[in-house]
Amino acid sequence: MRELKLIFVGFGTVAQGCARHLVNNGSFLKERRGFDYKVVAITDTVKGSVQNEQGVDLSKALSLMAKGKKLEDNELPGKKGLSSLETIKSSGGDAIIEATWTNLKDAQPGLSHITIALESGLDVATSNKGPIALFYRKLVDLAKSKGRQLRWESTVMSGTPVFNMYEFGLTGARINWVKGILNGTTNYILTEMAAGKSYDETLKRAQQLGYAEVEPSGDVEGYDPAAKITILANALMDADVRFADVTREGIIHISVDEIKKAERSSQRIKLIASAVKDQKGNVTASVEPTLVPDTDILAHVTGVMNALQISTDVQPDITIMGPGAGGDSAGYGLLNDILSISRMRGK
Amino acid sequence: MRELKLIFVGFGTVAQGCARHLVNNGSFLKERRGFDYKVVAITDTVKGSVQNEQGVDLSKALSLMAKGKKLEDNELPGKKGLSSLETIKSSGGDAIIEATWTNLKDAQPGLSHITIALESGLDVATSNKGPIALFYRKLVDLAKSKGRQLRWESTVMSGTPVFNMYEFGLTGARINWVKGILNGTTNYILTEMAAGKSYDETLKRAQQLGYAEVEPSGDVEGYDPAAKITILANALMDADVRFADVTREGIIHISVDEIKKAERSSQRIKLIASAVKDQKGNVTASVEPTLVPDTDILAHVTGVMNALQISTDVQPDITIMGPGAGGDSAGYGLLNDILSISRMRGK
Repeated sequence: MRELKLIFVGFGTVAQGCARHLVNNGSFLKERRGFDYKVVAITDTVKGSVQNEQGVDLSKALSLMAKGKKLEDNELPGKKGLSSLETIKSSGGDAIIEATWTNLKDAQPGLSHITIALESGLDVATSNKGPIALFYRKLVDLAKSKGRQLRWESTVMSGTPVFNMYEFGLTGARINWVKGILNGTTNYILTEMAAGKSYDETLKRAQQLGYAEVEPSGDVEGYDPAAKITILANALMDADVRFADVTREGIIHISVDEIKKAERSSQRIKLIASAVKDQKGNVTASVEPTLVPDTDILAHVTGVMNALQISTDVQPDITIMGPGAGGDSAGYGLLNDILSISRMRGK
Repeated sequence: MRELKLIFVGFGTVAQGCARHLVNNGSFLKERRGFDYKVVAITDTVKGSVQNEQGVDLSKALSLMAKGKKLEDNELPGKKGLSSLETIKSSGGDAIIEATWTNLKDAQPGLSHITIALESGLDVATSNKGPIALFYRKLVDLAKSKGRQLRWESTVMSGTPVFNMYEFGLTGARINWVKGILNGTTNYILTEMAAGKSYDETLKRAQQLGYAEVEPSGDVEGYDPAAKITILANALMDADVRFADVTREGIIHISVDEIKKAERSSQRIKLIASAVKDQKGNVTASVEPTLVPDTDILAHVTGVMNALQISTDVQPDITIMGPGAGGDSAGYGLLNDILSISRMRGK
């Protein structure tokens, strides 16, 4: 059994979710999936960094984080103080798990992490929407030219399989369009508003529950689903859609009255992200509040759940539905990417 | 680019669906997916057989079928008259596409086709539920011992990705239960009955539309979903469920009155197939009419659509929904299996 040497780059909620699965399911993964791993480094701009080619104790790292301590704590033996780029280059890893924050302006620092990793001959699994939404073609081409794998399952719909499902289960036909509910926060708000609560009240509650940020524009103005539909268009439809070109309208102008009015004609208002190929093969993408009839399964996707419909010309549409956020779920997406990386390397 | 040499075993609706996709999408598959193929033989108990190592003209074979002619027609050059087993052994193929009829008694002739193919060093993609439902462990072990691939995407939910999605996107965690609507015919009948039509009237209509067989017991008495849940339990949950042990109840005793009564308490009656792991790790499977609350997305799966929910202990459940039958869809499932076979061979 080949052991995959992993480097965590960014060690926040999502990376720790992945780390927990690796620790908790370690023997299952070894015995039933033929997968073994060693963490050779962890680096995080806030929590510090540790590098140890004998293996970093992942359980101990998690328990240090739970106590609010740093990765450079004495309990975790290894070399300390390296920058993230030094860590990626000098740790002898096979793959990085890139889980730093999403930056939709210039994709940094994720973009540099992924670029350096691929250039150094490492495979990459990332949950970071920034680099994939803004530099898809460049990064995919770089990975190809280096003969390396780049995977981004958890950038869209978290741990619900979208890209691995597509790559291994749906590539036999062209995709004509995709559409879906790709942002859990706004779907939660719209669901609560349908139950009669006001926008302001619901947003506040979403912030208390941790579904929405204190500065909520990424969700309620539709930037987050715009990044996701950009990734879907480019990855599933071979398109060249730019994030900045996505038509985008959020939910901040939707009133409870409008939602109630829609309901009286058997419709729901949902924030729908879609990418559609025209006759000439051009793909355009948009995010906008949309009247969805009750006969469409998307009308019944409530709360923080996400859903995506995929249409080809060879069979009726399929729909995948599942969690769209959360550290455990996104961490599971990263883990499944790592397993795909391992399988495709090992073959 | 490596060319995969294919043998069609069984050339009915599903195999012809796959063949059409191969013909129609040939250049797309070659240019965009790096996949090339040559059909070296086609064999069918009714339509005859043809073997040609230079390649059998698949378009011509399809047009002969459309005209009601035989594969042994003079328009299709090659060796004629071989049995299916001789064809599999002597055609120099890399993989067979096994799409003969489902036999839930002894799985023949599919079982022999798959066994001989694996023993002869060929990979297998099959849409045939019989061998996978009745002899899962035996066939998977045989494939493993021969270092060959056995894929069965279209046995459950047709061309909707289930097994490729699981294998490449969900294996990082144990699956606790799966449940779903796995038979389109009965879901169509229950949907129509909910609109007030009688069972007899609806069954007759389903038979006219080609959704139900003249002898409909495979669907309405639940044998078909029982075979499917057996496959799901064994393949996704590492179980050892036998088809004969699945608790099975069909829809023949359901009345319009019961359906209406359920609706008054915001529920639907659906034929639910499920496999559940208990505390000790034992898996039991069942097929039975079930009251599903409107808050469950399965309540909104109507007509001939199928849906499957998958539950792990690491994230909220996911649901995949899509076509559960049809030659084009099942043929697409076979095509995606063939692409997976090609990828996993080529790596």
